[in-house]
Formats: sequence, C-alpha cells, structure tokens
Amino acid sequence: MNQDIFLDNAATTRTDPEVLEAMMPWLGDNYGSPATLYAFGAQAKQAIEQARQQLADLIGSEAKDLYFTSGATESNNWAIKGVCDALESKGRHIITEQAEHHSILLPCRYMEKKGWEVTYLPVDSDGLVDPADVKAAIREDTVLISIVHGNHEIGTIQPIAEIGAIAREAGVAFHVNAAQTVGHIPVDVEELSCDLMSISGHKFYGPKGVGALFARRGVRISPLIHGGGQEKKRRAGTHNVPGIVGLGKAAELARKNLKAESQRMAGLRDYIMEKIEANLEDIRLNGHRTKRLPNNVNYSIEGIEGESIMLSLSYPTAEDARAIFVSTGSACVSGTLEPSHILLSLGVPAELAHGSVRISLSRENTREDADYALNALFEVAERLRSMSPVYKRGAKQCASADSEDCDCESSC
Amino acid sequence: MNQDIFLDNAATTRTDPEVLEAMMPWLGDNYGSPATLYAFGAQAKQAIEQARQQLADLIGSEAKDLYFTSGATESNNWAIKGVCDALESKGRHIITEQAEHHSILLPCRYMEKKGWEVTYLPVDSDGLVDPADVKAAIREDTVLISIVHGNHEIGTIQPIAEIGAIAREAGVAFHVNAAQTVGHIPVDVEELSCDLMSISGHKFYGPKGVGALFARRGVRISPLIHGGGQEKKRRAGTHNVPGIVGLGKAAELARKNLKAESQRMAGLRDYIMEKIEANLEDIRLNGHRTKRLPNNVNYSIEGIEGESIMLSLSYPTAEDARAIFVSTGSACVSGTLEPSHILLSLGVPAELAHGSVRISLSRENTREDADYALNALFEVAERLRSMSPVYKRGAKQCASADSEDCDCESSC
Repeated sequence: MNQDIFLDNAATTRTDPEVLEAMMPWLGDNYGSPATLYAFGAQAKQAIEQARQQLADLIGSEAKDLYFTSGATESNNWAIKGVCDALESKGRHIITEQAEHHSILLPCRYMEKKGWEVTYLPVDSDGLVDPADVKAAIREDTVLISIVHGNHEIGTIQPIAEIGAIAREAGVAFHVNAAQTVGHIPVDVEELSCDLMSISGHKFYGPKGVGALFARRGVRISPLIHGGGQEKKRRAGTHNVPGIVGLGKAAELARKNLKAESQRMAGLRDYIMEKIEANLEDIRLNGHRTKRLPNNVNYSIEGIEGESIMLSLSYPTAEDARAIFVSTGSACVSGTLEPSHILLSLGVPAELAHGSVRISLSRENTREDADYALNALFEVAERLRSMSPVYKRGAKQCASADSEDCDCESSC
Repeated sequence: MNQDIFLDNAATTRTDPEVLEAMMPWLGDNYGSPATLYAFGAQAKQAIEQARQQLADLIGSEAKDLYFTSGATESNNWAIKGVCDALESKGRHIITEQAEHHSILLPCRYMEKKGWEVTYLPVDSDGLVDPADVKAAIREDTVLISIVHGNHEIGTIQPIAEIGAIAREAGVAFHVNAAQTVGHIPVDVEELSCDLMSISGHKFYGPKGVGALFARRGVRISPLIHGGGQEKKRRAGTHNVPGIVGLGKAAELARKNLKAESQRMAGLRDYIMEKIEANLEDIRLNGHRTKRLPNNVNYSIEGIEGESIMLSLSYPTAEDARAIFVSTGSACVSGTLEPSHILLSLGVPAELAHGSVRISLSRENTREDADYALNALFEVAERLRSMSPVYKRGAKQCASADSEDCDCESSC
C-alpha cells in the first residue's frame, strides 16, 4: 500500500482511474488516426470530437473554438507568439504581469528580442493585478493582454472578468492561462470575456502530455506548429487520441462535481491555513487570503529554506513515517540560486522568499492526511529552526533584545 | 476478434503491448513530475533518462543530445524555426526538396513569409534527391539543409549519408526527418552525419503524442516552446512521462529485432509488389524500387480514384468480408482537390496521381493478410475500372484503336 501523502497537486495530479479507463481502448486496439477517412479512423475522429465537446461544456465555449495541444505550456507559447505573428502589422505591444508563469514570461521575453515591447504590470503584496493598471497600460499598438487566472505558486485568483471587459472595450485580444483553474473552479469563457484560454490536462486528473487552447472565432492567431491539416490547419501533428480522450473524460468528471468538490477543497485549505497559523509563528501567507485557488496553501517560514523543508518531509527519518510531497518556490529547485520571481514580485524579502512551502491539494487528500502532514511539517520546522544560524539569532531579535545573554555576535 | 487488416502503418501503428505495459505504472500510481526534487519525482526523472538512453542506443547518439517533444511534427517545426532563429544573423537561406512532408514544407513557407529564401530541390521520377544538387544549392548564407530520410508516401530512401557529408564540409546544419525510418531500418546519426533528427513514437509501435529531436551538441537552435527549465531549458512543459517511457521501450524493442524484422518486412513488401505487378496492368510504381522503406508499397492504378479504392476496401459489401485499411495520396483525403504534391513532384500526371494506393506494413501483417488484401484489391480495381468513364475508353486506347467498335465518342 502506498502511504505517501502527495500535496504537490499544482505540479501534477494523479490521472483519475475513470479517465485512464476511458483512454485504454485508444491505447490498445483502437489505434487509428482521426486524419484518415476509413472506418477505423472515423471512430478516432468521433472520439476526439466528443472530447472537444466535453471540454467545451466545462468552460462554456463552442467546441469548434477548442484546439488540442501537448499541454498548457505549448498553449501559452502558441497564444503569445501566434497572436503576435498574426497582428504584427497592427502593433507590437503586449501587456502581462510580473508574477506570471515562465511559460508566459519567457515567450514575452522572446518577443522583446524580436523588437516587441512588453509591459510587465506590478502586482500588490497579495499578488493581485489592478484592472485599472491594465486599462492604463493599453496603447494604440497593444495587440495582446495575457493574465493568468489562478497563480500556480501563490494561488491568487486575478480579477479576470474585469480585465476581460477592459480588453474587449479596447478591442485587444485577451489571453488567460487557466491551467490551475479549469477543472478546479467554475470557468466560463463568456463570463470572463476572454478570447484565448490555455488548458492543461494533467492539472485536473487528466493525463500528462495533452492540453488545449481555446481561441474564440475571429481571433487572429498564426499556428505555432505547422504541417498537416489537423485541427482545422491550426495545430499540425497526428492527434494524441488517448490523451485527448482522457482530457475530455477529465473535463466531464470535473464538471459533474465541480462546485461541491471546489467547496470541499476550499474547506480543507482553510483548515490547513488555520492550523498552520495557530502552530507556527513568524510566517507569511503568500497570495490572497480569500481570492485564492481552493487547493493552494503557501507560506514562507522565517529562518528556514523551503528546500530543506521539502526534502525533510519527502525523506522522513523515522522508519514508519509516511513520505510527504510538497513544493517550494525556493532557490535550488529551479536550478538557480534566485528565489521565486513570483514571491519577489509581491515584495517578499529574499530571505523569506527562500523559505516558502506550497501545499496543493487534490480530490484524494483527506483531513486525516492533512493532519498527519501538518504534524510532520511542524516537527520539521521546529527542528530546522533549532539548527538555523539565523532564526531568532539575527538582527530581528537583537534589535529588540536588551538581555545580556544574546550570543549572536556575527550579525548583531 | 478483430479481423480487420490494417495496412496504413506509415500513418500510425498499434502501440506494442510491451510498450503499453511499460507505460502503465506511469499512467497510474507513479504520476510524479520529473521536475521535482523529492523521491516521487526522482523516480520519474530516472524513468525518462532511461528512455532517453534507450532512444540514443537506437540511433547511435549521445543521450544528452536527445530532447523529448510531442511528436515529429513538433520536432520538424522546432528544427527549422529554431535553427533559423538562432542563425539569422549568419544567413537566411534554407535548402530542402519538393517531396517533403507538410511539416517541413509549411514551416519553410512560413520562413519565406518572414523574409527567408528557400530552395526546394527537385526530385527524379523515383523521388530521389541528387546530392550534387544539394551541393550546388549551398550558398554563403545557407544555414540549414533539411531532407527527409524515408518518404512517408512513396517510401523512397534518400542518400542521407552523402548529403550529410556535403553539409558537414560546407559547415551547414543538416536536419533529417527520420519519422519513417527510426525503428524500421538501421539509423545512425554518425554514419548519416546529421546534426538534427526528428523522431516519432507512434510510427514504430510507440504511443501517439510523443517524439524527439536529436540536436547534436554545438548545433545552435532556439527553443520553439519556452517556459520551465525542462529538457535543459530547450523544450519547456511538464514531461509526458508515460509517453516518454513508451517511446523508450519502443526503441528498445525495435533495436532488438531491427535487422531481422526489417528484412522480413522487405520480403513481404517485395512479395506484394510482385503480385500487384503480375495481376494489374496499367499501373505505376511510385517511389524507388529498391531504395525503399521496407514497409512501403505505393502504386498508381490507372483509371481509378485512390479514394474510391480506399473506401471500397474499408467498407466491404460482402457480409463476411474483412475490412482493409490502406491510404491514398489522392485528392479529397486532405480536404483539397489537389492530388498529392509528392506524386506531382515525381512527374506523375495528375490523373495517375489521383489513383495512388499506399500499402504500409507493420510487424503484425502476415503473408496471409497480404494475400487476402491483395485479392480484395484486385477485385475492387476490376470493378471500379469496369465502371470507369475513362479507363480504356479514353485517348490511350483510341489512339491505337483501329477497330470499328470503339464507342468512346466523347473523348476520341
């Protein structure tokens, strides 16, 4: 029996057994390509069109406005580079914000190298973009606004509907990276007034390696991947039929329980936040307290590296202890020594940014799991802090310390 | 029991049951992302690195020079657009040939729109490129040569090693689309002197939705998909772990039986070609007779539409007949009224180009299957020809006809 507790569901989720079951025929005997005219291919064609409808039903779009991709990263790249390519005669200015995912920021930086201008709007200390800032940043040559729906790291949910209304009024294409929200909270492309939306399969119990881009009819966008005539000549390549069928099934399942499951998860999130705040001092909640993904908890814990927490929980020393998997926005995870650009964009000081821990929930996580994980977290935090060369020994304590037994020579 | 006979394996193949078995744990309980540092992710990391080595062993490359993608179409787009992007200060000229796959031609046309020049070399009546033509086309501003290894439609195998030597001497990056050859015939990136190679999983019994690009160390190429740090920051996006594991397993299996299976298949191919030539008159072999993929048979059958043959075989009228799936380079399959650009590039007249039938074999196809399919093909061809308004009634017969019972009024 696998007793591990997986709390890194913003990174990836377990493929739902029902999703896998739906995929199996297409991984096995039904291996025809939908691009062919004979009966064997026609079945596959029917299957991917059903998946398109299932996904459309989840986000309130027309099925014909959905294009299957290899995942949200491809969709984000396609949205940015594709709209820029199609509209470069109209203008060369993009608006986004500083706390975006790398799959938005790096394509934007790429466009800058190509001579485009990009406005990276600031976010407040909770990670929120001010719609007024978006409005003020729109210029005559602005062709695209790209704002994430729910931030993958800090969980903040942006005021997308307000920004969408502003974009629509200005006649600027509006892209929303909804990798963290679709399947987790109600998402409706009409309510949000968005023109393009990126969707990831494996973020809501679908398979890895598949996603979609919603591109509203009439929005001008060039292909990112040219070739065969698949996806109305907008995204070439033999269809990943099992993946697409899985994505469709995941959408169907998500839609069925969306509100109830979203509420249950938000309840568990709030329970975890309360317990953390009752048991740990000198911490910082990262992200907005209420405008927040139902499955996201993120705190910086002063005096400790997030990486140390993550590894300590992942490789417990006690023989019968359960491994716990969380993530961190800290340093070395990304292979660099820089702390998360997202935490820095909130104004979190570098030393606190290094100490962030993200707990992200799934359907599978129970309150019992949460209790177990939290007890382990509190133990680890206490142990690491007791060994910390900085916690309660540095400037913070000394500044208010009158006592003579202060031994923090180096930093006082 | 599925009695259908699938002879469209150049389009896609059945995922080998052993491949699927290797994928299953990663579709199920082992769903961690390789990008994370904790134990659960480390297992996935290990699995994709094993797959990278398995694929490297198949093509004689260094594992570190392989990058996983969503398939050969993405790899082709990446190779062309990525090298062009990285080298545009050096020059803006590409060399390719006229009978390439759309996933090469359309990215080239895209680059033309961006101000690049592309030389589309001619092929001879067998579809072969002349290496001397490649050499003569190289200019000072040439930055990329892209030639397919084995043509997907007509099966012709290009003189890649000779072209590779020419490219290397000229110091021009050389890309080879090997989607049809890897796993089917011995492929070695050193012997072929290629710098970039596109690979597709589902073309050799691996899963759909996964492929790779070989990019030799030192070759300058920009990412096509920017974002997270995956694949040494060259191809962003959460790894499709099950797909990658499946691709690796397919490579391992292919390598085990490569020569024997390649010979067996070439034997079956030759048997089919002999029988077709013995039983049907007024046909044209498309592609080179010997420099040919071991699993490819392609003939134009005068007086009949390829699409009619394909559909007649796919939907047999007799109750107990087995459905047979082949493909055609003809008209409406691609949604246009144009015959295959590949057949036209060989100099095949349009009316013959419309009548092409491609039979492409897999490991599963037996001689008994071939006999059954061929008998069905001969019956269908005879029936369709008997109803044809043009076959043996048009100019061809009339020109030599002296007999008074010629009734072909309209066209004589």
